[in-house]
Order: sequence, then structure tokens, then C-alpha cells
Amino acid sequence: MIRSAFDAWARTQLARVEARLDELVPADAPAGLGEAMRYGVLDGGKRLRPLLVLAAAQAVEGDGDLALRAACAVELIHAYSLIHDDMPCMDNDVLRRGKPTVHVQYGEARAMLAGDAMQALAFEVLTPEVDGDDLTALALQARLCSLLARASGVQGMAGGQAIDLASVGQQLDEHALQDMHRRKTGALLQASVLMGAACGRCDATAWQALSDYGAAIGLAFQVVDDILDVTQASDVLGKTAGKDADQNKPTYVSLLGLDGARARADALHARARSALQASAVPDQRWLAMLADRVVERES
Amino acid sequence: MIRSAFDAWARTQLARVEARLDELVPADAPAGLGEAMRYGVLDGGKRLRPLLVLAAAQAVEGDGDLALRAACAVELIHAYSLIHDDMPCMDNDVLRRGKPTVHVQYGEARAMLAGDAMQALAFEVLTPEVDGDDLTALALQARLCSLLARASGVQGMAGGQAIDLASVGQQLDEHALQDMHRRKTGALLQASVLMGAACGRCDATAWQALSDYGAAIGLAFQVVDDILDVTQASDVLGKTAGKDADQNKPTYVSLLGLDGARARADALHARARSALQASAVPDQRWLAMLADRVVERES
Repeated sequence: MIRSAFDAWARTQLARVEARLDELVPADAPAGLGEAMRYGVLDGGKRLRPLLVLAAAQAVEGDGDLALRAACAVELIHAYSLIHDDMPCMDNDVLRRGKPTVHVQYGEARAMLAGDAMQALAFEVLTPEVDGDDLTALALQARLCSLLARASGVQGMAGGQAIDLASVGQQLDEHALQDMHRRKTGALLQASVLMGAACGRCDATAWQALSDYGAAIGLAFQVVDDILDVTQASDVLGKTAGKDADQNKPTYVSLLGLDGARARADALHARARSALQASAVPDQRWLAMLADRVVERES
Repeated sequence: MIRSAFDAWARTQLARVEARLDELVPADAPAGLGEAMRYGVLDGGKRLRPLLVLAAAQAVEGDGDLALRAACAVELIHAYSLIHDDMPCMDNDVLRRGKPTVHVQYGEARAMLAGDAMQALAFEVLTPEVDGDDLTALALQARLCSLLARASGVQGMAGGQAIDLASVGQQLDEHALQDMHRRKTGALLQASVLMGAACGRCDATAWQALSDYGAAIGLAFQVVDDILDVTQASDVLGKTAGKDADQNKPTYVSLLGLDGARARADALHARARSALQASAVPDQRWLAMLADRVVERES
């Protein structure tokens, strides 16, 4: 019952996100660039980040147009990072979301530029033209840009990818592994929650609690990713399974064992749910269900 | 006399930009990422874009801290684009500013990530933490992010690079060549002027005139680039000369001839100077000198 209410909510939100992304990513960008961008971001993926933005915005009664834009912006950042991450000089992956990766489809140069343009587009999406006197709307735009930029750069995703790259064949202890994942995937998941929260009313206590919620599910997401990499087949994942072990990358499974990793995911899930409760935000339903989904997902 | 006053002003501004970039680009970013970023942006280049930001800000009496941040942000975008542009899948260049290019020095993966992180850093730099009630400061941050994002993405730099990539060995007419350059280099130069102008008082008429000034010098810059590519040696340019002809790329020189290209540069210079005058902004000195420098430069 609750489950199917969540599914209905998620379907509605995802339809909004898909429609808006379809509008925002230009088909007519020059020299095949728009085509490569659309291929890389439309019609695929779990859209966890946009759902977090919209669930958080709704939790604080802030579900406006800029929340939908923020949902699209985080997905653009995520999608660009996948394009660059898949390239031969990085993970050299040929399959993503069950399709050939962007550089396989459009060549390396266009894939790199499509990723670059998508990062810029994320910030365009966050800064639509508004009445120049509407300082409140502009201030919110600036806050969203600040959160997204910090989650994407050296303190966040790009920094985490650099550590990931350097960690192949290395022994990382749990502290180092956690630092890598907090940056690589955790920062953007956490920022998704906070960008949603910024779109509504949120006092300092609720902000901190939602930040803790975001950090916990961000890490849980990665632990589950490591588990699925060894337990699921490529066709279920829509990407090449078993790559971490093949590349001798440190993972939560290699560090804690499969049972240990599952226990860790459960502990992070409990932490997320309790932080959410502590936030005392008005409407916690969808954030709570999203925490469940992160841990229970099978792909 | 005027010339040496300009040189003194430019030296002072460049010292401010270098010092701030040195603070802003983290040395301690993980896994060598900070080192690659610093190598790519510190201590090199003409810094034309930062000077345009600061000259425009001063022209409208808006030379504050956010103008200096904007100057650093545009340079970060420019520097990241050079790193990606030099990579083997793009121009495959090994020499830049007289030094080995970033991917030669640090490997392709780290070069790509350094560029990605520098684009994010540009938006971090534009959105420093301020008092949450200072809506005016936050609104300016949003305007600067909007200008920079649009100049960097498909309508601007990334779109222009995609056209450039697709144009190798093609015949472009002048209209198509101009469209490519307006995006590839013009958009960011124009945005530099407008980001500076946004930092001060600037009515709609002055804004439009400064926009025209920026467009004219943006195009002039590229025409001169094409001229220098055939008239200067690599050691003067600090990059590989004659590459455009070697790669059979369309240029203003191939389209208009050397004399025709020089006449075009002069016409654009005159247009920039007259737009500047029409702007009627209080202090036009340095913008006027920068227009001269763009056309008279020898590297």
C-alpha cells in the first residue's frame, strides 16, 4: 500500500524530470553535440538523485519550479560524470544502462565535449532568467549553484574519482575507502537532498539532520553498489558486473566481506532513517521510502 | 605614457589574480588532482579574460571582491578548456605556454579530471559563503554563474569546440566560421566583460554597448590568432605554430588571405572602440587599452 503510493509518486516525479530534461538538453546543439548529450542523459538510469531533490523539496514544502530544475541539474552532473568515467583513459567501459557508452557511440572527442557541456548546462539550468528585482529567487539560485559546484569538484565527485583512479591495485583501509566514496558518490547524493531542502523552509537543525540523512544514504548507496557488483549479472545491472574485482579495486566487500558489507548497509540505512526523524521536517514519507530503496535495490 | 600606465595597472591586477588563484586552487586535492590543476592554471598565459573582467568592473565602479573572483573563475574555465582541448582525442597537442601539456605531464585520466574539477571550481569561486540575509550579494553571484555557464556550454565554448572538431578538412563560409568562433572563444571573452560590468552600476544601454564591445574584441582576438598561427614561430607563441594549416582547418587567413584578415582585425578593433565610447561608462581607459592589445599582440 505505502509501497505502491511511493511508486505512483516516483512515476509522477520521474515523468516531470524526463519531460523537463527533454526540454532543457538542446537537440539542435552544433556538430552532433546535442545528440550525444541527449543520448547520455535522457531515457535511462534510476534517477535516484532527482528523486532525492524532489522528495526533500516536498518534505520542506518547497516543491517549486527551481526544485525541478535542481533535480535536472544534479542528473546532468551525474550523467556527465558517467560519460567521462566510461572513457578509455578512465574505466574504459563499453556498456552503460544496457547501451553502448557515449564514446563508443559518438567518439571520444564528442563524448568529452558532451560531458563538459553538460556540466555547464547544469549551472545554466539552475540560473534561469528571472525578474532582476526578485532577489529572493536569485539568492536561491546562488545557493543551489554553490551546493552543486562543491559536490562536483575536488571536495566531491571529481576528487573522489581521482582517488578511485589512483587506488587501483592499492590496499585502502576503511577510512580511506570511506573518504573516496563520500566524495565520489556521497557528495552529490547528499547535495541532492540539500538542494531540495534549500527550495523550502528549513531551519539549521533540520538542515543538519537532512545533511546527516544524505551522508548516510550516500554511503549506503556505495556499499550496496559494491555488493551488487559481486552478486548480480551484467544484464541486471545494465553495466559490466565484476569489474571492481577484475581491476583489483578496493571495495566494501573486499574490505568487510559480503556479510559485513550487508550489515554495514543496514546500519547506514538505520542511521538515515533516524536522522530523517530527527529533522522533524513536515513530510518525510518519500525520503524515508528512498532510504529503503537505496538499500533494497537489486540493480 | 598611457601605455606604461596601462602596463602598471595590468601588472597590479595580474598580481591580484595570481595570488587569488594560488589561494583558490587547492594544493591538497587528492591523488595529484590539485597538482595537475595548479600546473594547468597557475603561472602562465596572458590572462586576457581576467583583465577584461577587472577592467569592466572598474569601468562601472564595481571593482569589489566578487569581481576578482569572477576574474579567477573565467580563467579557470579557459584553462580547463585548454587542458581538454590539448588531449589526444582532441587536438593532441604536447606544448602549451612553453611547457608540456597537462596530459603529457600527468596522464590523460588526471588531465580530464583536472579539467572537470576546474569547471566546478569556477562555480565554487563565484559562490562564496555570505551572510544568508545579504540577498544583493547572492543575487550577484547568481548573475555571474548564469553568464559564465552560458558562455561555457553549448551556446558558447563547448559548442564552438564541437564545431571546430567537425570542421577539420571542411570548407566553412565566413558565416559558419564566425559562428564557430563566436562560440568557441568569443562567448567567454564577451562574458568576461559582462561579468565585470555586472559587478557595478550598469544601465541597459551601457550593458548592450559593453556586450557589443565584448563581441567585437572576441572576434578580433580569433582573427589575430589565425594571423599569428601563420606568421609566428612556436617559441614566440608558446604553442605549436602552423597547426591550423597542417590540420587543414578553416581560418580567417585561409578565407580572407593575410591582408584581408588584418583588415578585418582592424575593423573589429574600430567597432570595439566605438561601442565602448557609446557605452558612456565612467572609466573606459583600461577597456580601450585592452582592445588595442588584443589586435596588436604578437603572441
